[in-house]
Amino acid sequence: MRKGVFYGVGVGPGDPELITIKARKILNEVDVIICPEKRESAGSFAYKIAKEHIKSNAEIIYLTFPMVYDENELQNKWGENASIIAKMISNGKTVAFITLGDPTIYSTYMYLLHYLKKYDIEVKTIPGITSFCSVSSSLNMPIAEWEEGFSVVPLRKGDNDKLKRALDNFENVIVMKPANDCKILASELLKRGLENNFVLISKCGTEEERIITDINVIINEKIPYLSTIIIKKNGLKIYKY
Amino acid sequence: MRKGVFYGVGVGPGDPELITIKARKILNEVDVIICPEKRESAGSFAYKIAKEHIKSNAEIIYLTFPMVYDENELQNKWGENASIIAKMISNGKTVAFITLGDPTIYSTYMYLLHYLKKYDIEVKTIPGITSFCSVSSSLNMPIAEWEEGFSVVPLRKGDNDKLKRALDNFENVIVMKPANDCKILASELLKRGLENNFVLISKCGTEEERIITDINVIINEKIPYLSTIIIKKNGLKIYKY
Repeated sequence: MRKGVFYGVGVGPGDPELITIKARKILNEVDVIICPEKRESAGSFAYKIAKEHIKSNAEIIYLTFPMVYDENELQNKWGENASIIAKMISNGKTVAFITLGDPTIYSTYMYLLHYLKKYDIEVKTIPGITSFCSVSSSLNMPIAEWEEGFSVVPLRKGDNDKLKRALDNFENVIVMKPANDCKILASELLKRGLENNFVLISKCGTEEERIITDINVIINEKIPYLSTIIIKKNGLKIYKY
Repeated sequence: MRKGVFYGVGVGPGDPELITIKARKILNEVDVIICPEKRESAGSFAYKIAKEHIKSNAEIIYLTFPMVYDENELQNKWGENASIIAKMISNGKTVAFITLGDPTIYSTYMYLLHYLKKYDIEVKTIPGITSFCSVSSSLNMPIAEWEEGFSVVPLRKGDNDKLKRALDNFENVIVMKPANDCKILASELLKRGLENNFVLISKCGTEEERIITDINVIINEKIPYLSTIIIKKNGLKIYKY
């Protein structure tokens, strides 16, 4: 374990066994584990996943990364978090920041790196299993094959622009955070005759996992935050699950 | 380890430590490891990665999955491979098929499942780290952040259609198999003024790893088969690597 290095560690989609050997080694060796929180005392799903791999005397530190659109608030808070980390590193501690899924796909960790630049700290990023690979594996279903392309879009409330572009241009579309606007999602699927070409999984890999292929459920029920939809315009191709 | 189950195991991008704990456990327990080959005696990069995790007395079997477009040849060969696997399973062996990266993204394994359906075998797919997550992690660079989308397209010789659609519609574009037509790739980048907005990595994580950000290299040199390009229209955002 090298001193003065800041590790960003992807802990995967939820199952502690879907952590890589490299990630486990780092979690088991560093002095400090940083757990990001959306707001104070919100808790950390990433920590629950990583917990069994972290050494018993590691220091666990929660840092808040508010999900706000106020540029000033973000810069102040994130700059403050970066300085906390930089101080630990300069004190000779080894530090790992844990992040759900993969660190390079919609992760708070990547925004933090921007604020760490001025401290000239060495950074090593350890990839993780993304939620969409986990979902498609648990369904025994390809995301893309042969010459197909695919696209990944986050769904924002009231905004169907990205979803439309994706559906217009790609055979396979993954929608992140579909719970943000299920009405828009259902409407685009119905408009295109794709009501039988999607699968939604919520809380994949947990005891509360639910697989939804009925468009009426999306329209009428509350979909959990931790959900992913895969839309396959050429047909679902699910091997028995 | 359950008898009568066929495992599809993603072994990740190249580094044996980027295999998951779950994948390692399965590789260390099954009776038979199936290594796919493009042609007879071509060898298997997936096997090189997995090797140290496979138990010493496991049976290693190479099956050929020719990369041809002849529908009949494919169906015969793949049907034959499926029957070989089905026979092993019915003889009570545990069998794992290893695949580079993630099994659900452009993997031969997924095509095979189609031919396995008639045998009514239970299948479990274990996700892996995809090449593009590995590449972006090794660069400390986000694939997508905030409200951005991204798309993944394979490049086929002489065909710029998918690449164009991706670049027209998404902030972030990952091109798989860019070596198939570097001329088309360079031309689309130059046309859009994106000649400083891409990074190409070949043989990521190996001793021969090479990082290319100069468009002239893409135009004038031979790019290896195992390469990935990430194009970021909003700027590269690489933390020191």
